Amino acid sequence: MSSNFGTLFRISTFGESHCKGVGVVIDGCPPGMRLNEQDIQPQLDRRRPGQSSLTTDRSEADLVNIISGTENGRTLGTPILLQVANRDQRPADYGSMQDIPRPSHADFTYQLKYGIRASSGGGRSSARETIGTVAAGAVAMKILREKFGVEIVAWVSSVGDIDAAGIDQETLTSKEVDTNEIRCPDDKAAQQMRQLVAALKDEGDSVGGIVSCVIRNVPTGIGEPTYEKLEAKLAQAMLAIPATKGFEIGSGFAGARQRGSQHNDLFTIKNGRIGTLTNNSGGVQGGISNGETIYFRVAFKPPATISLPQETIDFSGKPVTLTAKGRHDPCVVPRAVPIVESMAALVLVDMVLRQEARKAVQFKED
Amino acid sequence: MSSNFGTLFRISTFGESHCKGVGVVIDGCPPGMRLNEQDIQPQLDRRRPGQSSLTTDRSEADLVNIISGTENGRTLGTPILLQVANRDQRPADYGSMQDIPRPSHADFTYQLKYGIRASSGGGRSSARETIGTVAAGAVAMKILREKFGVEIVAWVSSVGDIDAAGIDQETLTSKEVDTNEIRCPDDKAAQQMRQLVAALKDEGDSVGGIVSCVIRNVPTGIGEPTYEKLEAKLAQAMLAIPATKGFEIGSGFAGARQRGSQHNDLFTIKNGRIGTLTNNSGGVQGGISNGETIYFRVAFKPPATISLPQETIDFSGKPVTLTAKGRHDPCVVPRAVPIVESMAALVLVDMVLRQEARKAVQFKED
Amino acid sequence: MSSNFGTLFRISTFGESHCKGVGVVIDGCPPGMRLNEQDIQPQLDRRRPGQSSLTTDRSEADLVNIISGTENGRTLGTPILLQVANRDQRPADYGSMQDIPRPSHADFTYQLKYGIRASSGGGRSSARETIGTVAAGAVAMKILREKFGVEIVAWVSSVGDIDAAGIDQETLTSKEVDTNEIRCPDDKAAQQMRQLVAALKDEGDSVGGIVSCVIRNVPTGIGEPTYEKLEAKLAQAMLAIPATKGFEIGSGFAGARQRGSQHNDLFTIKNGRIGTLTNNSGGVQGGISNGETIYFRVAFKPPATISLPQETIDFSGKPVTLTAKGRHDPCVVPRAVPIVESMAALVLVDMVLRQEARKAVQFKED
Amino acid sequence: MSSNFGTLFRISTFGESHCKGVGVVIDGCPPGMRLNEQDIQPQLDRRRPGQSSLTTDRSEADLVNIISGTENGRTLGTPILLQVANRDQRPADYGSMQDIPRPSHADFTYQLKYGIRASSGGGRSSARETIGTVAAGAVAMKILREKFGVEIVAWVSSVGDIDAAGIDQETLTSKEVDTNEIRCPDDKAAQQMRQLVAALKDEGDSVGGIVSCVIRNVPTGIGEPTYEKLEAKLAQAMLAIPATKGFEIGSGFAGARQRGSQHNDLFTIKNGRIGTLTNNSGGVQGGISNGETIYFRVAFKPPATISLPQETIDFSGKPVTLTAKGRHDPCVVPRAVPIVESMAALVLVDMVLRQEARKAVQFKED
Repeated sequence: MSSNFGTLFRISTFGESHCKGVGVVIDGCPPGMRLNEQDIQPQLDRRRPGQSSLTTDRSEADLVNIISGTENGRTLGTPILLQVANRDQRPADYGSMQDIPRPSHADFTYQLKYGIRASSGGGRSSARETIGTVAAGAVAMKILREKFGVEIVAWVSSVGDIDAAGIDQETLTSKEVDTNEIRCPDDKAAQQMRQLVAALKDEGDSVGGIVSCVIRNVPTGIGEPTYEKLEAKLAQAMLAIPATKGFEIGSGFAGARQRGSQHNDLFTIKNGRIGTLTNNSGGVQGGISNGETIYFRVAFKPPATISLPQETIDFSGKPVTLTAKGRHDPCVVPRAVPIVESMAALVLVDMVLRQEARKAVQFKED
Repeated sequence: MSSNFGTLFRISTFGESHCKGVGVVIDGCPPGMRLNEQDIQPQLDRRRPGQSSLTTDRSEADLVNIISGTENGRTLGTPILLQVANRDQRPADYGSMQDIPRPSHADFTYQLKYGIRASSGGGRSSARETIGTVAAGAVAMKILREKFGVEIVAWVSSVGDIDAAGIDQETLTSKEVDTNEIRCPDDKAAQQMRQLVAALKDEGDSVGGIVSCVIRNVPTGIGEPTYEKLEAKLAQAMLAIPATKGFEIGSGFAGARQRGSQHNDLFTIKNGRIGTLTNNSGGVQGGISNGETIYFRVAFKPPATISLPQETIDFSGKPVTLTAKGRHDPCVVPRAVPIVESMAALVLVDMVLRQEARKAVQFKED
Repeated sequence: MSSNFGTLFRISTFGESHCKGVGVVIDGCPPGMRLNEQDIQPQLDRRRPGQSSLTTDRSEADLVNIISGTENGRTLGTPILLQVANRDQRPADYGSMQDIPRPSHADFTYQLKYGIRASSGGGRSSARETIGTVAAGAVAMKILREKFGVEIVAWVSSVGDIDAAGIDQETLTSKEVDTNEIRCPDDKAAQQMRQLVAALKDEGDSVGGIVSCVIRNVPTGIGEPTYEKLEAKLAQAMLAIPATKGFEIGSGFAGARQRGSQHNDLFTIKNGRIGTLTNNSGGVQGGISNGETIYFRVAFKPPATISLPQETIDFSGKPVTLTAKGRHDPCVVPRAVPIVESMAALVLVDMVLRQEARKAVQFKED
Repeated sequence: MSSNFGTLFRISTFGESHCKGVGVVIDGCPPGMRLNEQDIQPQLDRRRPGQSSLTTDRSEADLVNIISGTENGRTLGTPILLQVANRDQRPADYGSMQDIPRPSHADFTYQLKYGIRASSGGGRSSARETIGTVAAGAVAMKILREKFGVEIVAWVSSVGDIDAAGIDQETLTSKEVDTNEIRCPDDKAAQQMRQLVAALKDEGDSVGGIVSCVIRNVPTGIGEPTYEKLEAKLAQAMLAIPATKGFEIGSGFAGARQRGSQHNDLFTIKNGRIGTLTNNSGGVQGGISNGETIYFRVAFKPPATISLPQETIDFSGKPVTLTAKGRHDPCVVPRAVPIVESMAALVLVDMVLRQEARKAVQFKED
């Protein structure tokens, strides 16, 4: 169980779906920064269930509490504990599923790995685990925004076979993303997605989707080759989000079909500095940011917990028909938007700190 | 520069394209294992340039030398230095490119990040850097094979728009992969790929491709949620390989278009244990191996260094026409096959060790 | 601020003296272990202030709460948050000391390092920070005891110039240590120490002391040379405890005065296994446990906060006479006993896990 | 086997006494620094055996070779491999000792831990392992000196019962330390030490000693509480050196006997900044440097390998009389001087980089 992430800005998350609380300890936050719960709560609100009729009915306020690491609204540079209480500590409605591992869910693998697992709700593999990530990510985003002007915006670009179109990733804002409950800034596509999700909710089925993310105003020189290239850490970060199956940056899989003469980003002067005419690289070359906009996409599989009956077996090997109860999202991508932003911020803030250390001791030509 | 990877099986690579040597130090290799250069050389031979008329003409023997960590052909449990001398230490033929950053190459970002860069051949961003990875990977593969029966086989599944078909990933062997110089086990597709690459070599252009990889006989329970989920570390590992732009595991991006009722892998009894009827999950659920075959795909962009003239600018901002010289591959994926296998092995061996520690101290029900 | 410790059994502590709470997240605890608050509370009770008339009057219950990582009294293998609420969140009685850095206290260095510091009570440098360490240590001790039979016992061996004598470190128990409030198992010395501390309390002065610690039944082969030798990690762990100035293991500084012919521990057969006739090595050779009893000593300086007037300067450089108020211990070593045990346990449990991973994949002669 | 040290300036050492070579990979060295073998060789020369008639007769040139990470005499910011060839790869004269673990040597514990060990000369536990440390330390010292003006000077302060006196640690230079072969700047004591060591060499015995070290011009604010306090990392670093048994900083064990009113370092204005009148703290308070001189002492036990006959047992448990052959130092402290300096530099350079990262993103009052 590695619930730690980062080298200089290090987080340690904790919490299962039905224990007393979930959250994160952040070690290495810069001192002196104004920080209170209102800096963090909005992203948690975007993540929490029960935001719309489309998501699970489980409604939890998920109010964050800063337990340590600040005084008089400023960070002390000491570890910050951000905690959210679990209201629903021991629900009964998962009981019947105890002996049956849900297909494509972590019930089975947690049991294999640990020889024990939380009796209900997915335990640590529950989406509630992401609360710690999002809370820490909100702090990381604030540092990046205030110190470097970095902007991170994610949105839903596909639900099932419905793809958004016409998004300008150089200008898109989170406010625009949040104009509908799908978090897809292409309104026409969003409406179709909404209908699909609503229909699947009625059917008891679920559907996958894609979250896209853009990072603007990235300082140049960020990323630590070779094993902590910027795209490598982003890939790790995204595949650490529950239900993800793929990551691509810049031209991605489509770029694998191109020729060098098409794909190469020629250099030019842009705004008085060296930039590139195109951005197939997605803002990174050789694992290091080049100052262009970073953009990437993350594939989410359909949620495993569905109400449609499934012919499977229980832990003893006996065939059973599983009809899952409980409150489950038919589509997780709208709620995944702040999680993707948070993981991106956590990667970036750590990399920025590491490059600042290098810059401070760099030797100049003499 | 983070040239370290792994927690218990830790590697530290070193070496630029034109320094005295490249290689890796492995810390944490199990003691007592038979190990000599012949265990490592075959994978380096698969990686090295000049294997066929399709790749760069730069022909280097790349002979590995075990400097430390073994005695009488057995590992001591101490750090193992694997080293390959660079024959070609200071070539002249990159000289003219010194002032012009190659488009979509790391020349520019290394200069930004470090304020200095190797004068030729890409320095640390050169493909020669992967020698350390491959050498360490060969050791990791040997441990996994001998202790756990794990099989790792990668192959070229696409070059440009040409896709391989009809591969049985449950039985495919490295020997079959190596029957042609493309390392695509679909002979018909391989022939087309070969023609495309040969044509592009003549044109002075390059092309991208996809490497697929399968891991069989994976122990169950491997992977360290939440931030070191097995798929997260595989994603990091793959995106740390030069020229990669995407990673997908199991159903991948296609899975994002499916419904839960299609995508879920129902449980069944297989070979006397609990297995799954389908394997859309790609052998991992919730970040942990479930005993099914792991498979994933990695997208490689076309190599940046092409001989076709490119209209770009030099470091001073002056427009120039760049016509790159030097010896460059028009397509890297055949040589990337052992690199993908190596990174997969490095992820897996570390995770297996971590799970073994857990198993040793697990408390049983009483 | 590195509040993380350990590789496989990793802890992250948090909390200042006057924030909402203090504690620790443990990542990597073995699954399936029975664990409840009663396993942890006794060590916290030994650490807390107000245990006797000799220590500070600040009386805090310091009740630990397991927030996550267990279910039905068993560990899940997931992160365990152990939390203690701070009762006394914003006391007034430090106010007058705000502008005056206490001599030999961390007030000054925290301000230099972070550019900000907690307004009272020492913040993160307060002894309250050790609550997280002790709580995590209690869990580590339970694992070591139940899985390996390891016994860790620390005691006060000196206070000022008064030294304990006649302690048999092969049989000493914690119960014997706790028979007096000094935690010195030599009753006669304990009585003298008690008188000294009481006198200094009246004078408004403080005094240093030495804590000794013994670890019995240590598995052989524990320790990770070269930089994580067992004695090296113990030294780090002990010097990470507030107010410590020295560490010695086995013969320690006295051994530096000896000759090899005196100091060498000759091998012999003991209880059917290879052991040593003497134990000047203190149970470690070359950084690795040899199965003999580990013993070491830790020097604690006198507490910095004293009530006697001190001629010093304030942060602006103005000369002032500082007469510290507040509740402070004249001698910390009795309360340091469980802290020393805890840090020892945290080092050991991590090292044991790492060796178990090695043992599981070791290759035997063939 | 953890041969890695450091977070941002990370080293990985390798090499046994009789393999092909020993050395270190440094990851995270600042780019652009002038670096060639002459920057490193002097410290290796101070470390190597055969420097005087007092040390082992084994004479090895130990010439360092920079294999990677520099070009045209400047660091590239990429991993630097520093390598020293072993001349003496398979000596015969340890052969007779193969079955007999040397008392108080690591032969026994390496065999227990790894189930295998190098057949001669101590393998990884040999003093040759410290070559990597010293080579990396020389690079660290150069950075610290050139970027921050830090001065690190170690010396022999005791050999057996002979103690040096009258050393002014505010002005002492390495040149003064090297005026005699004992590396003790108190000439009178040095002469007595020399006689003692010469006598013990004749007798076939050995003796312990103490190395003291001073670090001047340390930037303030260095050290990462709580577990990576500056003194904690120094303690780890020193106890990682072969044959060390103790570490004390500032007042050390003597401080444990003092009262707060004696021990506290009162603040005053010194050279226009806030400093302290005394320096019992040894330059650190609460784990953070306060700008005063850091000083500490390290205890070395007598070398285990002596020629005097020892009544011990072999690995099979059979009583034997061991009369060790081979070339061994009767006293290691003169050669330990550069090792102590190197470990101190490795701790400091990493801590300085981490504080620079913090300073770069610190938020100021607004």
